[in-house]
Amino acid sequence: MTPQRIPPRSGVAFELLKGQRLTVIDPEGTQVADLLAYNRADVREVLSNGRTLDYEETIRLTTGNRLWSNRSNVLLTIERDTVGCHDFLLTPCSVDTFLHFYPDKPVAPGCFGNLAAALAPYGIEEDMIPVAFNCFMNVPVGPDGKISVLPPLSRAGDRIVLRAEMDLVIGLTACSAYASNGGSFKPIDYLIEDPG
Amino acid sequence: MTPQRIPPRSGVAFELLKGQRLTVIDPEGTQVADLLAYNRADVREVLSNGRTLDYEETIRLTTGNRLWSNRSNVLLTIERDTVGCHDFLLTPCSVDTFLHFYPDKPVAPGCFGNLAAALAPYGIEEDMIPVAFNCFMNVPVGPDGKISVLPPLSRAGDRIVLRAEMDLVIGLTACSAYASNGGSFKPIDYLIEDPG
Repeated sequence: MTPQRIPPRSGVAFELLKGQRLTVIDPEGTQVADLLAYNRADVREVLSNGRTLDYEETIRLTTGNRLWSNRSNVLLTIERDTVGCHDFLLTPCSVDTFLHFYPDKPVAPGCFGNLAAALAPYGIEEDMIPVAFNCFMNVPVGPDGKISVLPPLSRAGDRIVLRAEMDLVIGLTACSAYASNGGSFKPIDYLIEDPG
Repeated sequence: MTPQRIPPRSGVAFELLKGQRLTVIDPEGTQVADLLAYNRADVREVLSNGRTLDYEETIRLTTGNRLWSNRSNVLLTIERDTVGCHDFLLTPCSVDTFLHFYPDKPVAPGCFGNLAAALAPYGIEEDMIPVAFNCFMNVPVGPDGKISVLPPLSRAGDRIVLRAEMDLVIGLTACSAYASNGGSFKPIDYLIEDPG
């Protein structure tokens, strides 16, 4: 089965039906993919980092953990994870974060702008974009609470597999930020598979 | 100046104008107050833990830190903080979290239900309630990423002072959850002061 490719610094949206599996692949290594999920039947129900951290009782989500919605329903279950290091604290990079963190560099729409454009046909507006589940993003929290953004630990071919627990609209990017991928913009691949 | 009192397991909403200061006081100690803030001119702009953690680069927010909106504007600045231990990871307790964490105990509307009721007159619906800034809530993150909910470190009279950076609608509770306040439901006091 041939994966679909998300070109560097861009994003896509698609439907993922209950039981289908989404595999997010880092084809070259050291790249981040921001993942959003909405209830297809009512897109006001959306991925929530707060509910997920509350119910899963960890910020280091990996195989076996579930991603929850703002209405306390499970949207996705992580079935397989060859990296074990993802982030669910930070918002998608955006024009605002580029201006904030990289004032001397060219501004890009970022994952936020790419997600907004890809999700617009589903009736999802900018203000409905919460914190994404940032696949492969490496955000250690120090004992003093300080947050760092380090290059991902993912190597070429590393992947995370998520099973849909309801019919979803998914947003997915190949990240545009400088810090999150060590300054090298790369593609992201993904596969959708039916159950069984 | 006499503070207003929020009775145990309840919540309030009010306007806080640009420049005004809100002091949240734990009058008896070891209690949590969930705080939400919305742009009064457009309540789709709301407090965002992801933007705040991104820009402030810490999960341990205290004096000098700012609380940011989903549109990357500063809503509130922490001017004074006698505790230095608050949470911005976990969602307000709700009927769902009560059923999840305390299946054998009576269910309560929780901070989520109390905030929803208090904020409804401002046109704010349940799906527009994100992760609150949980004043005095003690949520250590272990080196392995595990999250614990421990009794607050606040003692009687401890307080946090926040300055409004735009005209806001504020939601504020005296928390209803068992774990977050050591099982003892207590009131929260607050003061609103004009600048100068």
